[in-house]
Amino acid sequence: MVLAIQPTDLSRLGQVSVVGGAGFIGLNLCRHLARSGASVTAIDPNPLRREAIEGFDIRHERSLTRQAVEGSSVVFHVAGSTEPASSNIHLREDMAGTVGLTLDVLEVTRSAEVPQVVHVSSGGTVYGPKAPTPTPESAPTDPVCAYGISKLAAEGHLQLAERLHGIRAFNLRVANPYGPWQDPRRGQGAVNAFLHRAMNDEPIELWGNGDIIRDFLHINDVVSALCLVPLYEGDQRIFNIGSGGGLSIAQLIKDIESLMGRPVRIDRRPGRDVDVPCSVLDINLARRELGWRPMVQWQEGLEDSLTWMKQYVPAEAETR
Amino acid sequence: MVLAIQPTDLSRLGQVSVVGGAGFIGLNLCRHLARSGASVTAIDPNPLRREAIEGFDIRHERSLTRQAVEGSSVVFHVAGSTEPASSNIHLREDMAGTVGLTLDVLEVTRSAEVPQVVHVSSGGTVYGPKAPTPTPESAPTDPVCAYGISKLAAEGHLQLAERLHGIRAFNLRVANPYGPWQDPRRGQGAVNAFLHRAMNDEPIELWGNGDIIRDFLHINDVVSALCLVPLYEGDQRIFNIGSGGGLSIAQLIKDIESLMGRPVRIDRRPGRDVDVPCSVLDINLARRELGWRPMVQWQEGLEDSLTWMKQYVPAEAETR
Repeated sequence: MVLAIQPTDLSRLGQVSVVGGAGFIGLNLCRHLARSGASVTAIDPNPLRREAIEGFDIRHERSLTRQAVEGSSVVFHVAGSTEPASSNIHLREDMAGTVGLTLDVLEVTRSAEVPQVVHVSSGGTVYGPKAPTPTPESAPTDPVCAYGISKLAAEGHLQLAERLHGIRAFNLRVANPYGPWQDPRRGQGAVNAFLHRAMNDEPIELWGNGDIIRDFLHINDVVSALCLVPLYEGDQRIFNIGSGGGLSIAQLIKDIESLMGRPVRIDRRPGRDVDVPCSVLDINLARRELGWRPMVQWQEGLEDSLTWMKQYVPAEAETR
Repeated sequence: MVLAIQPTDLSRLGQVSVVGGAGFIGLNLCRHLARSGASVTAIDPNPLRREAIEGFDIRHERSLTRQAVEGSSVVFHVAGSTEPASSNIHLREDMAGTVGLTLDVLEVTRSAEVPQVVHVSSGGTVYGPKAPTPTPESAPTDPVCAYGISKLAAEGHLQLAERLHGIRAFNLRVANPYGPWQDPRRGQGAVNAFLHRAMNDEPIELWGNGDIIRDFLHINDVVSALCLVPLYEGDQRIFNIGSGGGLSIAQLIKDIESLMGRPVRIDRRPGRDVDVPCSVLDINLARRELGWRPMVQWQEGLEDSLTWMKQYVPAEAETR
């Protein structure tokens, strides 16, 4: 099964750089860009998974340098270090990994005279628990975890780079992406983590009672949004990128059970302060300004993730 | 001349710590706390100016450690590293100095089991140019300089410390403070810098045409607000602390000329991106919740600053 992805002529982009190109979002983005005619440099200290880049070329640079991004029409900054849950424990690492890395990206972007940068921020953590849902970009920011605090600071530095140095700088506040190449063993994202547990008949860790609402978005829809931004000519700089709706964790588990055709085991844990009760983004600005729309249906997206997982994630390789 | 300061019985605070106690805000705060019956530890790598602490005792610790704050009823975090204008050049230093130091403060506060922390944030840089004026605490944040970005992240970490660890954590968004012990040679604050230039018959650097509006607040009014917070029992955690009004830079210069009885020379420079056109804080929340009010009149505050400067800042010691 090959899922739909909103088509755009990306050959116009010419050469592009993807910081964090070996990660979940980065790898999907690199693949789509390369397939669509762009010349892609993935910048990541980690190697690119060989099986993910068959059939096209992606240049790989381990270090983020001026030389690595030189000649690009855009730098995509999709690298992440910590996760929301662990960020509250490793506060300094989160700051260095998120804000410090963003400063590095902006520095090489500026020094290589790349005219624009597109940064993946966090739709799920910058707004805070009191925001209206669906949450528009204009809602007050009030992050309740260190990850959100750092992402907001990183966003600020992008805006500052545009103000001071004229770099077109975009922040995409992405909801909860899931899909192929999201390693379920790293605790990245509930959908793949749960699918993987269910696939291996291991218990799913459920924090709280399952009534938490999340805005799950297939990675193809994130990639299509990212690719539209460098072609955008309007004045907006911050865009929510979500599915347009919300799903409870309990419903996610039910849907996984339907897909698997059997019940899954659940390991109940207390609720976490890091979790806002409901996160659903208002995506009308991106629809209107970018002409973007999410195209992957939830059920087919979930199935796509499972299909990928069966092929690429060894069942026995579970690491805790 | 001794200026009014809103009276509060501070002996109830017992032992207190002031991180940044050798700086402008810190020194004024330490002096007032010590005079009012609190037992004060100033924590600062720099020495306390001996002439500022005559007549009372202030313990001085150079290092921010658990031992230094142990037994305190409150930690005041009034340390600042960079200035708004230079923060845009030294982005990493600003992040480390502002956010990193705040993480250090929160860590020792928690580890020493001090129940509350009061942080001086920046009323002039966190809101951004589109905020309504006077600006209430609920206005969207949109910092236009690295200093504001970092202050906002520091604020977030205080709120996170309360959420995760139960530390009562307050952010005071202070406007543009001026007054005694603000070193005019460090580029801290327009009022003292301009007064000092005028006093030495040197030209005042004017960035832009002087129509920028600032909310100048005498340090005594900042100190009285800081001292009311640890005694506050309500639910609010973020307070604007300003004068209640705004003054143009051009008017500031005129008022300095009136005070000096002679015209001052002006060195005109282009406007700076770091400057929002108008910064005036809405202080009704602090009035209502803390029972605080600014008491120093502008003219008497300006005169107080000049009187202090004539006594304590050598005219010949100008450093650039």
